[in-house]
Amino acid sequence: MVYLDNASTTKPCKQAIEAAMGAMENFGNPSSMHKLGIVAEKIIDEAKISISKVLGVDKKTIYFTSGGTESNNTAILGYAFANRKRGNHLITSKIEHPSVLECFKLLEKEGFTVTYINVDKYGVVDLEELSDAIREDTLLVSIMAVNNETGTVQPIEKIKKIIREKSNLCVYHSDCVQGFCKIDINPKKMGIDMLSISGHKINAPKGIGALYISEGIHVAPWLIGGGQQKNMRSGTENVPGIAALGAACGSYERISQEIFENFKNKLTKKIDNVKINSTGDNSGYILNVSFIGIKAEILLHSLEAKGIYVSTGSACSTNKPMPSHVLSAMGCSDEEIKGAVRFSFGSDEFDIDTVTDIIKNEVENIRKYVR
Amino acid sequence: MVYLDNASTTKPCKQAIEAAMGAMENFGNPSSMHKLGIVAEKIIDEAKISISKVLGVDKKTIYFTSGGTESNNTAILGYAFANRKRGNHLITSKIEHPSVLECFKLLEKEGFTVTYINVDKYGVVDLEELSDAIREDTLLVSIMAVNNETGTVQPIEKIKKIIREKSNLCVYHSDCVQGFCKIDINPKKMGIDMLSISGHKINAPKGIGALYISEGIHVAPWLIGGGQQKNMRSGTENVPGIAALGAACGSYERISQEIFENFKNKLTKKIDNVKINSTGDNSGYILNVSFIGIKAEILLHSLEAKGIYVSTGSACSTNKPMPSHVLSAMGCSDEEIKGAVRFSFGSDEFDIDTVTDIIKNEVENIRKYVR
Repeated sequence: MVYLDNASTTKPCKQAIEAAMGAMENFGNPSSMHKLGIVAEKIIDEAKISISKVLGVDKKTIYFTSGGTESNNTAILGYAFANRKRGNHLITSKIEHPSVLECFKLLEKEGFTVTYINVDKYGVVDLEELSDAIREDTLLVSIMAVNNETGTVQPIEKIKKIIREKSNLCVYHSDCVQGFCKIDINPKKMGIDMLSISGHKINAPKGIGALYISEGIHVAPWLIGGGQQKNMRSGTENVPGIAALGAACGSYERISQEIFENFKNKLTKKIDNVKINSTGDNSGYILNVSFIGIKAEILLHSLEAKGIYVSTGSACSTNKPMPSHVLSAMGCSDEEIKGAVRFSFGSDEFDIDTVTDIIKNEVENIRKYVR
Repeated sequence: MVYLDNASTTKPCKQAIEAAMGAMENFGNPSSMHKLGIVAEKIIDEAKISISKVLGVDKKTIYFTSGGTESNNTAILGYAFANRKRGNHLITSKIEHPSVLECFKLLEKEGFTVTYINVDKYGVVDLEELSDAIREDTLLVSIMAVNNETGTVQPIEKIKKIIREKSNLCVYHSDCVQGFCKIDINPKKMGIDMLSISGHKINAPKGIGALYISEGIHVAPWLIGGGQQKNMRSGTENVPGIAALGAACGSYERISQEIFENFKNKLTKKIDNVKINSTGDNSGYILNVSFIGIKAEILLHSLEAKGIYVSTGSACSTNKPMPSHVLSAMGCSDEEIKGAVRFSFGSDEFDIDTVTDIIKNEVENIRKYVR
């Protein structure tokens, strides 16, 4: 098996599994007053330290959630509703993950005005448009760090600089689900006020995520009840998941940037009529390629039959094979969107020559026989 | 170690751990179109079947959440906001879990009117008061199945009968976090329209829960994004947690009702000046006892030193040792509330004689030396 769908989800690493097992053995409720509760609290604290080290922030700015979706929902909805007296305008980009975009659609229904910034053909947000869009009453800009379909890295520091120049009010949230551990992210240096993290994209199990909230930023909690996590996120903490997230990010090793380059070069050299959609500054983890004249879904299944697992876009819009809003925003043609496959790399090694040969064969077969 | 704090959290059982491990090995994203996605989908489906068997409902009425808090939040907030055009009045009881009560406090701020039903000295909701409270515009009644501090079972069928008699509009939600698997709950027969479940109270790990939503009930999703779970709860499913929840409820074995009775009888016989607060119909899992003249926290720590783990109330109001709103609603005196300890039983066997002897000694020592 060659698993090239790591942007959908990754296999939990040994360290993460061991940490989760340990936290199921030490099974106390962190809110309990006795020793078992204190042990659970300590497990959580260690995970916070592990994450805060990667980000270069204070551990008390880290909150745990059930995943990237809850982190994005909490940051965007929680910030907008908590601060609506201060402003009514919000900004995001057209290439965000659905868990970001759906928040803004909801906020529009609630009376907020939202500006959706365009991207260029490389998938990079239009900074001039962003600058023009920021108003006196702009509460929040949410622009992702790394796009989940193309791997394109957004110019975070430039975005923050523009926000700072134009507004004292506006805060910056970034969905870093595809960037955390994979590219250098230092929210304090970069001026990111809120930052979303997901465990299962970095070899932790599914069901755990985190949200960085800079001190002084007021966010309404999205889950309410017992007041856990300084009242920011109620509900008994997912201690095994938290332990696993801490272990996964503490032991994360980046892959070589050469994989992306080699894979891309070999594909384009071996196969006619391909268009690389990942052309901007890239995380090195995601390569989006259009095989012209081919329906991506057919290629996906023919590669699957050879033991190679890929994706046609993001796996996040379940059972809805819709044309990619990301490629569409980048100006790709219908044909390019229809034939777009996402190769996303992980820690498992594989032979680039063999895999690209197989892809070449499958593409040629489909082109020959399938109309 | 004698762990008598199972209402706070339970130790994951072997079956749950194995199921979680299996789902970390079969790590696909259920939304992926390839085989790994299908395997993950199947794991989820099996867990749904396992839960739906316990409840006697169709598997398509089961949705997975991150835990009891999210289930309660989704049911109450999601139902109220989705149906507010139909009515503005809501009913709950004074002894609900904070993840229920906080929702109603929020809804009051949003302009809803909420009636909080009293309980009698046994901790049972006042059915006459409930009947009188239901209005033409009452949208929702939320009353728990089993109280988390006392183990008191509420008269669910009578509650539903009253709702049916008085209203065609009103639906019934029940927080069954402390009842699921432990008492007979059949939402279809009992007329429960929405029902909340938590994994870590029945030997599944923390971070997973479920929500039963009867067909035809319209609830706004609380987490939004990729549209997973029929758009009812976005976010990549916590497949290991889901698998573990399915395994835990599939293999759950109820404890003997005798434990509760024996423990209670021996305590009252051996120790002077105790007041049993769990006097109504009880799940058999939770025994709440006031040791008069003693601060519960001191007894908790002295029992901890002997390897016996108990709780002073619920563990859900973290780091906030506040007087119990449940015992207060039952009319307990300040002294009784101050001395209240919760013993909650689980699958691990223990010697009732030895444990009650130790408690007797500790209580007597504290009474002698601590003022």
